[in-house]
Amino acid sequence: MSHLILSRRDIDFLLFDWLRADALAERPQFAGHDRDTWSAILDVYEKLAVERFAPHNKKNDSHEPHFDGERVSINVEVGEALRAFSTAGLMAAGMPAEVGGLGLPGCIERAGFAFLTAANAGSVAYAMLTIANANLLIAHASPGIVARYVQPMAEGRYFGTMCLSEPQAGSSLADIRTRAVPQQDGRYRLFGNKMWISGGDHDISENIVHLVLAKIPREDGSLPAGVQGISLFAVPRRLVDHEGRLGERNDVVLAGLNHKMGYRGTVNCLLNFGEGRHRPEADAGAIGEIVGEPGQGLAYMFHMMNEARIAVGLGAAALGYTGYLHALDYARTRTQGRRRSERDPASPPIALVEHADVRRMLLAQKAYVSGALALCLYAARLSDDAHSLPDETGRRDSHLLLDLLTPIVKSWPSQWGLAANDLAIQIHGGYGYTREYNVEQHYRDNRLNPIHEGTFGIQALDLLGRKIGQAKGAGLELLSGRIAATIERARPQAPLARHAAALDAAWHRLRSVTASLQSLADAELRLANAAAYLEAFGHVVVAWLWLDQAVAVNAANTDDDFARGKRAACDYFFGWELPKLEAWLGVLHPVERTPLDTDARWL
Amino acid sequence: MSHLILSRRDIDFLLFDWLRADALAERPQFAGHDRDTWSAILDVYEKLAVERFAPHNKKNDSHEPHFDGERVSINVEVGEALRAFSTAGLMAAGMPAEVGGLGLPGCIERAGFAFLTAANAGSVAYAMLTIANANLLIAHASPGIVARYVQPMAEGRYFGTMCLSEPQAGSSLADIRTRAVPQQDGRYRLFGNKMWISGGDHDISENIVHLVLAKIPREDGSLPAGVQGISLFAVPRRLVDHEGRLGERNDVVLAGLNHKMGYRGTVNCLLNFGEGRHRPEADAGAIGEIVGEPGQGLAYMFHMMNEARIAVGLGAAALGYTGYLHALDYARTRTQGRRRSERDPASPPIALVEHADVRRMLLAQKAYVSGALALCLYAARLSDDAHSLPDETGRRDSHLLLDLLTPIVKSWPSQWGLAANDLAIQIHGGYGYTREYNVEQHYRDNRLNPIHEGTFGIQALDLLGRKIGQAKGAGLELLSGRIAATIERARPQAPLARHAAALDAAWHRLRSVTASLQSLADAELRLANAAAYLEAFGHVVVAWLWLDQAVAVNAANTDDDFARGKRAACDYFFGWELPKLEAWLGVLHPVERTPLDTDARWL
Repeated sequence: MSHLILSRRDIDFLLFDWLRADALAERPQFAGHDRDTWSAILDVYEKLAVERFAPHNKKNDSHEPHFDGERVSINVEVGEALRAFSTAGLMAAGMPAEVGGLGLPGCIERAGFAFLTAANAGSVAYAMLTIANANLLIAHASPGIVARYVQPMAEGRYFGTMCLSEPQAGSSLADIRTRAVPQQDGRYRLFGNKMWISGGDHDISENIVHLVLAKIPREDGSLPAGVQGISLFAVPRRLVDHEGRLGERNDVVLAGLNHKMGYRGTVNCLLNFGEGRHRPEADAGAIGEIVGEPGQGLAYMFHMMNEARIAVGLGAAALGYTGYLHALDYARTRTQGRRRSERDPASPPIALVEHADVRRMLLAQKAYVSGALALCLYAARLSDDAHSLPDETGRRDSHLLLDLLTPIVKSWPSQWGLAANDLAIQIHGGYGYTREYNVEQHYRDNRLNPIHEGTFGIQALDLLGRKIGQAKGAGLELLSGRIAATIERARPQAPLARHAAALDAAWHRLRSVTASLQSLADAELRLANAAAYLEAFGHVVVAWLWLDQAVAVNAANTDDDFARGKRAACDYFFGWELPKLEAWLGVLHPVERTPLDTDARWL
Repeated sequence: MSHLILSRRDIDFLLFDWLRADALAERPQFAGHDRDTWSAILDVYEKLAVERFAPHNKKNDSHEPHFDGERVSINVEVGEALRAFSTAGLMAAGMPAEVGGLGLPGCIERAGFAFLTAANAGSVAYAMLTIANANLLIAHASPGIVARYVQPMAEGRYFGTMCLSEPQAGSSLADIRTRAVPQQDGRYRLFGNKMWISGGDHDISENIVHLVLAKIPREDGSLPAGVQGISLFAVPRRLVDHEGRLGERNDVVLAGLNHKMGYRGTVNCLLNFGEGRHRPEADAGAIGEIVGEPGQGLAYMFHMMNEARIAVGLGAAALGYTGYLHALDYARTRTQGRRRSERDPASPPIALVEHADVRRMLLAQKAYVSGALALCLYAARLSDDAHSLPDETGRRDSHLLLDLLTPIVKSWPSQWGLAANDLAIQIHGGYGYTREYNVEQHYRDNRLNPIHEGTFGIQALDLLGRKIGQAKGAGLELLSGRIAATIERARPQAPLARHAAALDAAWHRLRSVTASLQSLADAELRLANAAAYLEAFGHVVVAWLWLDQAVAVNAANTDDDFARGKRAACDYFFGWELPKLEAWLGVLHPVERTPLDTDARWL
């Protein structure tokens, strides 16, 4: 079963042969670690994926969370899997020793998560949210809050959520209306409605720590406009006293579940804060503590969001990857039709994979999902560098490059991992369209990823509207340097020289279009086709990483099936995918104006 | 509600302003018809769509057919809707007067079906299959069979199915194993398993007429190999005597339901023929009558399949279209965010449609779904011409062109209508991912269409491997002529001249790549990247039809919102879609060899 979840060989190649993760062990932050300990930890993730997460993945889909008006019921296997995960120490794997963590490098932890997400995206989401929540609190909250909430989260006793959107404010957080009213004791009472809260209510943990964006009213009772008025609050489902004892239910109630297309294992709901249902009216309001300073809520939340965005990309890559492995397995075992050259209709049929068009679909999937996985682990490695490189310049550069790449890390796997899932259905034919097989669930689960944590369109605006110009384009220059270095390494290697030339041309073309866009004073015009820019940028970045992988494969000087498969996927990407670039860049310079100029009434 | 199903304005434009369907009334086959009668009939389809089909569309999804081991239960609304449809005379709308039909032109009937499919694809599929089944029998079966089965189908009392695939033979019909053993009385007894039978078992009609592909054993009991050995049989669920009275259950039993990702309103199952469950063993075998001549089964079945392929394309266009209208409605009413130029965070948010990127997604949807609808109605009009043009050359030419276009009519809407459904989800954000809204069901329903009635890959082989060379390329020449005529009309019109030039260049490029492919002697090499050829061909054909629509809009000399919307969608297609062509053609000449040369073990 493990071989249908994720390729450990690919993970090992990406982490150790390509990203040289073992070099991290030389840094003081990771003292005492080495490749062997990390391999052993990856074994644990893989084993949990196979034994604890995969077995109830289909049940999560067919038996989604149910709300009877009083309580939410969730499959018991979800809690069992997460307890096994916590018991193995993995909830705190990436956390510092002070809270009982292992201090695992992010790239190792992410790789481990890829196994779990591929096995069961719905169940593992609770852990991802809890860890990101705890990491935010470690970075920004007072010692009291950390002691009260992070410790039990590290032990897997409390889970965490992020509460940003509201029914009227999805992507536009400036418009949130949740109020946080200061109390005499320094705490706050929150009133408002929060939408799309994953893990928002359930009974599989002792408590739930909601991180809630809200606004502190001005003296006249009005709410400050814009994002500057947003603060962040830790609001537990059940109150916790200073000794860490659980007290009464807080004034946070579930108003209804969302019934999703997929990802059904993760309960997702509308929460009402301060409705007063569990207490006398005068005592209404969800009690919360402010995290950090007032008005800094969105900045802090970006700590969690940036982590979540990498997690979304990684999850999308993992779901695409397991779909690919299922399709490959099916294509190798299912027989259908004959070769063109075979004239005898009584000859035995051949395996699907013997048809060139089926191999095309498998190569596309491989190029998408292994490329997406490489992208996400590259980002995780950058994040490790941003925290652990000895020199400040190195740390700052890693941070800048990661910042630039984050919208691509979030969106490219979400789009192309999903495309891989679509192809996996296609390879299965009619069987792929049925719930008796697994691949249609992968598609439905993965369809969430281009939406949450900032839609594709939001990521496009982030990239073109903010990231490429950040720090006077320093991130873009860093990326240029890394791409040039790969091209230099690839150029002398005969089979890669043409790809190196193609990447060089593509990157220069992208830079030139970027410059022309940056020269436009009219922001509306500059950003009108930002989505095409994100598409183009993403494809160039992944082409670079495929070339870089091929260089690493050649450096290892092996010529086994794995190495040949890597080269074939690289060839496929340069032969079939990178040529799409011109269609995207063509609408950016000059800006194709049809979407801009079309009146809403004409549609 | 009607305005969210399909645009009657667009249907009227396509049928009458663009395709000049009213001219059909001048032909003897349609004597007594005119635009007014056709408009009145379209009103009936539209009304049925709104009142009878749409209301239970969601229920079909949430309450799928259930098999308790004895009988299949289906939502009662399905039968009610189909009875209303039959009572209105629509089951026989396109059939000749001899069986009580209205003799409606195919393009009008198809347009009417588009409303029903957009409203409820699952329920209307029973009618589509019944009509296609009856049409095959009218064309190829003996008068006795027609009298016994077609008449009650025309009245909506019997329904029809097509039984081609078997568990071991999906796309490869040469490998079917169902046996048809001749009996003394001239009838046959069938033994075998048929997979993916839509409408295969239910109790909403008095009887079900299965059209079954099977092989007549040789004297030694062996089955003839290849497609030449396939014959076609009419096998009723319940036997019917010569007076049309229903007799005992035939030996056809349901072996299990398939639980699909979508399209759940249409029951789909595995049927066992001749298992002997309903009779003593010596009397086993499903009794059937041969349709036409032995060995001609696949040729006859193509009558139904070609009709079904247009229906699939049309259904995909319709599902894409309703998704587009839902997204447009949502984008006009849901507010979120502000313009770039708006500095005041307290200003009211704007409608989603005011964001350029949302209009891009809406334009893409419009270009896909209205383009797909145009393609399918164009094909239906060709089919009418093939039967009703006064001159034999005209009829033959129409038939050749329709034959050439059929793989595109089947596959382009299936692919891009689905892409439109995906964008409709994206515009809805998180809401679009929930079953509380409609667009995710549209996506799931439509995902069937690239699979059934010949997958995308099969259509690609049909186009490149058969259709372009058919009749020495006569179809391709006819298409060339029609494209050239559109270019000639568009060229003098300033805003369309550049599109005319782009289409001219694209078509010549496609012809040149086609010629280079045809010159390859190695069929394996020639067809390796057939999927890319189908992509490219489809996009050029739809670009042509968009330009042709724009010419028709300009000819009408109106400049209302509808006309401007048509021009904007045409501009979008030429600006954003046609440039994708080079990426597809680039892998065809010379043939990009990665899929061909990749060994299955490397994947």
